[in-house]
Amino acid sequence: MIFELLTKDPNTHARRGRLHTGHGVVETPVFMPVGTQATVKSMTADQLHDLNVEILLCNSYHLFLRPGHETIHQLGGLHRFMAWDRPILTDSGGYQVFSLSSLRDINEDGVRFQSHLDGSTDFWSPEKAIDVQVALGSDIMMILDDCLAYPSSHFEAEKSMHRSLVWADRCKKHREGRTPEFPNSANSGIQVCAPALFGIVQGGIYHDLREESATRLVGMDFPGYAIGGLAVGEPKPLMYEIIDRVEPHLPAAKPRYLMGVGTPADLVEAIALGVDMFDCVMPTRHARNGWLFTKDGHIVIKHAKYKDDPEPVDATCGCVVCRTYSRAYLRHLFIANEILSSVLNTIHNLYFYLDTIRRIRQFIEFHHFDEFLREARKAGFTPS
Amino acid sequence: MIFELLTKDPNTHARRGRLHTGHGVVETPVFMPVGTQATVKSMTADQLHDLNVEILLCNSYHLFLRPGHETIHQLGGLHRFMAWDRPILTDSGGYQVFSLSSLRDINEDGVRFQSHLDGSTDFWSPEKAIDVQVALGSDIMMILDDCLAYPSSHFEAEKSMHRSLVWADRCKKHREGRTPEFPNSANSGIQVCAPALFGIVQGGIYHDLREESATRLVGMDFPGYAIGGLAVGEPKPLMYEIIDRVEPHLPAAKPRYLMGVGTPADLVEAIALGVDMFDCVMPTRHARNGWLFTKDGHIVIKHAKYKDDPEPVDATCGCVVCRTYSRAYLRHLFIANEILSSVLNTIHNLYFYLDTIRRIRQFIEFHHFDEFLREARKAGFTPS
Repeated sequence: MIFELLTKDPNTHARRGRLHTGHGVVETPVFMPVGTQATVKSMTADQLHDLNVEILLCNSYHLFLRPGHETIHQLGGLHRFMAWDRPILTDSGGYQVFSLSSLRDINEDGVRFQSHLDGSTDFWSPEKAIDVQVALGSDIMMILDDCLAYPSSHFEAEKSMHRSLVWADRCKKHREGRTPEFPNSANSGIQVCAPALFGIVQGGIYHDLREESATRLVGMDFPGYAIGGLAVGEPKPLMYEIIDRVEPHLPAAKPRYLMGVGTPADLVEAIALGVDMFDCVMPTRHARNGWLFTKDGHIVIKHAKYKDDPEPVDATCGCVVCRTYSRAYLRHLFIANEILSSVLNTIHNLYFYLDTIRRIRQFIEFHHFDEFLREARKAGFTPS
Repeated sequence: MIFELLTKDPNTHARRGRLHTGHGVVETPVFMPVGTQATVKSMTADQLHDLNVEILLCNSYHLFLRPGHETIHQLGGLHRFMAWDRPILTDSGGYQVFSLSSLRDINEDGVRFQSHLDGSTDFWSPEKAIDVQVALGSDIMMILDDCLAYPSSHFEAEKSMHRSLVWADRCKKHREGRTPEFPNSANSGIQVCAPALFGIVQGGIYHDLREESATRLVGMDFPGYAIGGLAVGEPKPLMYEIIDRVEPHLPAAKPRYLMGVGTPADLVEAIALGVDMFDCVMPTRHARNGWLFTKDGHIVIKHAKYKDDPEPVDATCGCVVCRTYSRAYLRHLFIANEILSSVLNTIHNLYFYLDTIRRIRQFIEFHHFDEFLREARKAGFTPS
């Protein structure tokens, strides 16, 4: 994987870059829709292509449990399985092991846990996280990190951060030389690419720990760095401050990825602080709950006031839903519990996120991102 | 509406025709997917276009209750509301009033009923059925008929059939001169077309009653005739026999529509008996339950045997799902309760129905439909 840093905004830390992966090019800053179970909920691959989604995130933990990474591997890998020919980033499963499963035991080796699906017991380790991601055929893999609860003491955060560093090192060592090989890939046209492995900066809300984590990860020389453990309940200003303080310790020539974040406002602010990559379930999950993003704030489509409303969700939006359907129709679908409600709302919300990022990229290219930032803050279009 | 009878199969009663409506041309025999609540469940308009769906059926009763036919009318009619620019056939609401609502009172005037959604009381009459369908902007409307339970005695069936005849006459009189006018339609590009009104042959399982119903309806001169009250529990051979006995009483120059039928085998058999139009929830509803039609029978996608199956649902099928996804992926989506499962399964099943009908049209054109019929019976591809 190669990262090109194309230009920087002169008045903020915003960056315009380009990721070259084995499955194609990704323009950064980029928002990655979440395809937890090998599907971005309710979207066909065609719809994702029409939205110009450039890269997806999939969850190793979910796919390990169901249908199983070995099954996906035997079927030619995740790209072929879900018919997605563009890049895929996989998480390490750590976050889900810590948040979804019943933990049985955690030590330096790894985590013994119970599946949230059927209660079966399994073991997750740095090596396992790599094996699963290699088997899936991910383009960008993540190291397994110890996911800290919020709030945590400095002592707890330090211990956890150190464990994450040890695990990062084990992931890196285990990854070396491992390139996915798929059954019959020579005859099947399956593209086999050496995956990149990103480090993850941890350290809770403590600047000294974050700095140590970043510095030592950079010493290990990863092709990209994520900032993990944020948006877990800490105040927004603190989150921005942590990003701001971590940023100088990350090499300019490598992409930076803020995991699991966030609202449109979060994206704008974090881009101003030098972040290149994002993922979040917010646009897709909110869509299914009838919460639709617009440039003037959001609308909750089930409200009675939309019953007869012939206007689109957002008259300034260029998505196929806004060009085609009235709020009244979208409200009807939501109230009637129709599947098409989730489909259309998801298309609109993803378009909103991706279009916002596209516009941001343009503003960075023209070295006017500070203007976009000012307008976005004034409009407050992005309630958190 | 104009119906062209293009050709007839020399060895069966199968017909090849063409319906010209204000919203475009429909090749017959035709299968109409069901869009109960102004949406074919889980399908976007683009997906229906890609499947080359030529005409949809929508349910007046459902749309009357929610969001209300007046609301849809104010928003420019059903075509604009659901962004469907091809023809729409609406039922009269009779079947749903009889089957879904709590009936309060039925007499010659109409039916007092309680909504299955909120228990509110309303009144349905032949005139109401026309008003609702005109307000929706339907291309083909249906008369309100009295829907008989199965089994029913000759006495009950006769009484019901006579009531349906009286109602048919009232529908026809009420319809005359009524053309939908939509608010601002002159400036909105909304196409306003005079809808056709079809009569419905009733009479239960009694040939004399069916014959009387058909003859008297034909005397009223409708632009098309439906056969109603079948596939309600009677044995299949009896259903076919009734169609066979009604057919000679229907004018060759008008389209015949078998309501709510059925399995692929039913379609093949009924086409051989001279039927031109069909609707059924089977392909879409079965899709959501993971029942997928194939030329060799059906498959139930949740079965464990498909867990690692790299093959498409049907290797001979040309649909985008079979060209793209494995059974293993479709099983995974179904087991994981993903929305995309309903979407992809629906695309496949609708394609199967529409492709079957397309092939049938070709066989009729080449005067070889008897061959298709023989092969279909032998293959038994269509369990009922």
